Amino acid sequence: MLQTIPSIQDFKQKIRSFKYNHLTIGFVPTMGALHEGHLSLVRQAKREHNKVVVSIFVNPLQFGVNEDFQKYPRTFERDCELLSKEGVDIVFCPDREEMYPPGFCTAVIINNLEDKLCGKSRPGHFRGVAVAVLKLLNLAQPDNAYFGQKDFQQTVVIKRLVSDLHLDVRIKALPTVRTEEGLALSSRNTYLSELEKKDALCLYKALVKARSMADSGIINVKKVIQEMENIICGYASATIDYISIVNAETLESVTSIEKGDVAVLAVRIGKTRLIDNMLL
Amino acid sequence: MLQTIPSIQDFKQKIRSFKYNHLTIGFVPTMGALHEGHLSLVRQAKREHNKVVVSIFVNPLQFGVNEDFQKYPRTFERDCELLSKEGVDIVFCPDREEMYPPGFCTAVIINNLEDKLCGKSRPGHFRGVAVAVLKLLNLAQPDNAYFGQKDFQQTVVIKRLVSDLHLDVRIKALPTVRTEEGLALSSRNTYLSELEKKDALCLYKALVKARSMADSGIINVKKVIQEMENIICGYASATIDYISIVNAETLESVTSIEKGDVAVLAVRIGKTRLIDNMLL
Repeated sequence: MLQTIPSIQDFKQKIRSFKYNHLTIGFVPTMGALHEGHLSLVRQAKREHNKVVVSIFVNPLQFGVNEDFQKYPRTFERDCELLSKEGVDIVFCPDREEMYPPGFCTAVIINNLEDKLCGKSRPGHFRGVAVAVLKLLNLAQPDNAYFGQKDFQQTVVIKRLVSDLHLDVRIKALPTVRTEEGLALSSRNTYLSELEKKDALCLYKALVKARSMADSGIINVKKVIQEMENIICGYASATIDYISIVNAETLESVTSIEKGDVAVLAVRIGKTRLIDNMLL
Repeated sequence: MLQTIPSIQDFKQKIRSFKYNHLTIGFVPTMGALHEGHLSLVRQAKREHNKVVVSIFVNPLQFGVNEDFQKYPRTFERDCELLSKEGVDIVFCPDREEMYPPGFCTAVIINNLEDKLCGKSRPGHFRGVAVAVLKLLNLAQPDNAYFGQKDFQQTVVIKRLVSDLHLDVRIKALPTVRTEEGLALSSRNTYLSELEKKDALCLYKALVKARSMADSGIINVKKVIQEMENIICGYASATIDYISIVNAETLESVTSIEKGDVAVLAVRIGKTRLIDNMLL
């Protein structure tokens, strides 16, 4: 039976009882508006643990002042139905006051990683992510925590956080789930019109091009990025935020492609900013 | 038998075995150069737990560029002898590379608290403290961690850190241990000449004056601080860094004294910066 817990105190107590009974915990932190991408994480967590905990918290600290915190899709009841069907044990759903009570003043910064790529166009985003995820990991005390590879930089930031601070948890980044045509699932896809949804395929097409060029032995990054840009510029509603090929750990741009590098990009489709990435 | 462990990997394994056997852990983080103040923490930890862990790590991140990191007293063998006599189980003594390996890039900031008082004259000090203590707490996984009340702002910062990040540990701040004359014990007292040691009593005298004024019903902060300044200015080698009366949680200066407020001060005696405080 799915149990929804909004209170930190109650959540702590529940986790303590799991721990006391030597039950393993798989944890999937989310902002709700769940799709098949989230559910793939939940299913993996379910396969590997006695108990599965999902958090639903639209974290205000990771949204910039002009971003979509207010209009971010909130579908709590539907989310719970979906999670219930998957056999999830607990949905932890604190509100803002519960997570950031008056007097809260701790910030967590992952230097070097937070200002790159998405961090450039979303200043403060990754410290918002970092502090919320750190709090949630400390509360849920999971054996494994699951994140989508779609938010590639996020997974790198969180792995670094966990390693630097010696958290006793394994971070698992699972493959991006896509529509049949290749669009990476994202809660923000609901912002797209039908026409924009078609244009949004340009991210995937550019990434597939990059991979096929890399596969064919091309290591010149400029050449590859030029081809990716050409593809995206063919779509009227698309504006490039960034395209880069980076080292998978440092997120530094590489100048010649090696196996294990990652092509990453952010593109605005109309007013909606989408991100995607692919291992080369 | 005291065991000294410099490796994080070995330390983790040891802690895991304690946890597995349901042993409680009391933890005293130190920078070594131990004195009776530290030992009072160790004894309290010993009374309250199955296992006592002490860390000795002179944390470079909490020293400013022109501060005394290089000359900070290091007395490792003597420290271990003292701790062995107290029945301590483990001394965790990582080196700098072990704590901050290449690639380490996480910073922890306790906003509002870190820039006040000592934070003003030691910029960056408390984020250095915060990240090291957070790492150590995550590694040692203690039931209780012990700190000296002498470093009052540090105890406030760490309590806030623990509360904001939901660490599963109680922070205990134990009373300052003093010489018979009243000088607060500090590893930095070894920097003082015999003459300076006498002058260093001015901190205690000023605090005692503040408390006696508060006890007699005086609530005017300006008046109290003026008297404290008068006392300290009577000592040739003393230069005031700050004197303040603050709320014990927010560290905000108060304008009229209430029970529970704390008189705090930092004074240079010659070249040595000393701090002390007293509950009013």
